[in-house]
Amino acid sequence: MAGRTREDRIRGVLAPVLTPFDRTLVPDAKRFVAFSRVLASLGIGLVPFGTTSEGNSLSAEERMSLLEALAAGGIDMSRVLPGTGTCALTETARLSAHAVKLGCGGVLMLPPFYYKNVTDDGLFRAYSSVIERVGDNRLKVYLYHFPRQSQIPLSLPLTERLLKAYPRNVVGIKDSSGDLSNMEAMRKAFPKLDVFTGTEAHLLPMLRLGGAGVISANANVNGAAMVELVRRWRDPDAEGLQEALIAFRNAVQDFPLIAALKAVVARATGDHAWRITRPPLVDLTAESEAALAERLQAAGFSI
Amino acid sequence: MAGRTREDRIRGVLAPVLTPFDRTLVPDAKRFVAFSRVLASLGIGLVPFGTTSEGNSLSAEERMSLLEALAAGGIDMSRVLPGTGTCALTETARLSAHAVKLGCGGVLMLPPFYYKNVTDDGLFRAYSSVIERVGDNRLKVYLYHFPRQSQIPLSLPLTERLLKAYPRNVVGIKDSSGDLSNMEAMRKAFPKLDVFTGTEAHLLPMLRLGGAGVISANANVNGAAMVELVRRWRDPDAEGLQEALIAFRNAVQDFPLIAALKAVVARATGDHAWRITRPPLVDLTAESEAALAERLQAAGFSI
Repeated sequence: MAGRTREDRIRGVLAPVLTPFDRTLVPDAKRFVAFSRVLASLGIGLVPFGTTSEGNSLSAEERMSLLEALAAGGIDMSRVLPGTGTCALTETARLSAHAVKLGCGGVLMLPPFYYKNVTDDGLFRAYSSVIERVGDNRLKVYLYHFPRQSQIPLSLPLTERLLKAYPRNVVGIKDSSGDLSNMEAMRKAFPKLDVFTGTEAHLLPMLRLGGAGVISANANVNGAAMVELVRRWRDPDAEGLQEALIAFRNAVQDFPLIAALKAVVARATGDHAWRITRPPLVDLTAESEAALAERLQAAGFSI
Repeated sequence: MAGRTREDRIRGVLAPVLTPFDRTLVPDAKRFVAFSRVLASLGIGLVPFGTTSEGNSLSAEERMSLLEALAAGGIDMSRVLPGTGTCALTETARLSAHAVKLGCGGVLMLPPFYYKNVTDDGLFRAYSSVIERVGDNRLKVYLYHFPRQSQIPLSLPLTERLLKAYPRNVVGIKDSSGDLSNMEAMRKAFPKLDVFTGTEAHLLPMLRLGGAGVISANANVNGAAMVELVRRWRDPDAEGLQEALIAFRNAVQDFPLIAALKAVVARATGDHAWRITRPPLVDLTAESEAALAERLQAAGFSI
């Protein structure tokens, strides 16, 4: 469940919402809003334009248009954290200001990721320039640490510097490193920082550490089970709930993840268009989809 | 010198034009056009929005506005190859169509670079989607192979497939791998493809292989010497000209390159604003700049 803290901050389970495209690879706002409503009805918070959303494969205009469709579609925007981090600070600032204007609960902000081996000074300057340009205390930034994909790790000293400089704006981090010890170190060093794990395989240990929750690709299709664990993590059967999340994850992780999740949604909804990915990704082949369905069924999941 | 082939294609020396910013990190069109004119007057072709240009640190609007300033400033656009490759095919197509409309000699197109370990099928689909969307035979695409920076290598089989599918649109490649054997393999496999090396350290061997020329960061400040080698590469002293290019390169390569080149331009023009970089880069410190000047002077270059 994606509830709120006393400071009105989002917690619990969030899904980097899959982005549907039509046959001409144009984002389909209608399917997007309908799918987002289903997730929200399950108590799942929304992270449009995350990595799983193919967010960086969308232009700024496409992101803003889809976000406006969510607002117009009656979604509670305080439970929406759109991805706004691009390589260009002016674009990141524009997307972030737009998200604030629409009342979003925060933004998930990748560092600029074209130049590699940049310094902490350069990354501080990048985040700082965006925050200053937006210039709005309502902006709540969730840093996005995903070294394998962005190739730009966010260090603890950088996080500390940003927290000190912008205590009202920098409120959380998504840690997609898969390294539980890094998340534990952040929880200890920065008690006020909301730490989300990027994998539900660490959801129970993160909740025990006082983490804020999980933002995971698989929440698009297995989010209800994650919400259940967040609701009952102190119960005696919590370990079993955690094991079931890991079993699902193991079943899908040998397939190209985004295409695989889209195929699962296509099967669940009977709507073929959900299978379409944007380049540089490729859609799952029929053979791979059959193998995926077999793996999921063998692990006890209906598909 | 950036001349033309019979097919009216650009060859010779091209500079990924440095982008000047003002104190608020906004691109400065006036300085940009003035600097581009100086390069063009030296016989150097222009590649705005390349890696050295901090091209990916600019929004689409900023790139289009600067390109329009070049056209309005009287630059011969047939000698301009703007960088247009972004992570989003709609943005890449928009920038490429805009470049065609302004009469650019071509576009330098990075593959989408957020997702890593993508397939050749996915990359073919990415380039193909952009070319089909632009839908204009005047579009001349120069592929951009820069594995260290983009983390997305462009393989020979992918290049072959693109050349076969779009013989009118795919005309060249910039190879910034630094691997001369890869450039030699491309020259042999694809005689019609214009191959540019990304480093002047390989300019003479590339000219001997029938390469199209060089697109190098250092052409911003040492381009005249590269033009001289292109003009006289069959002369007996060509090896000496090549050695001098390598000496310059060795002197600057221990410094953060983009900031260092901007500092050289700032000193040459007496215009401090040239030192400003956009995040995630950082400007050269005064100490580093002094060390750079010393290195260049010791190598025989006035600064």
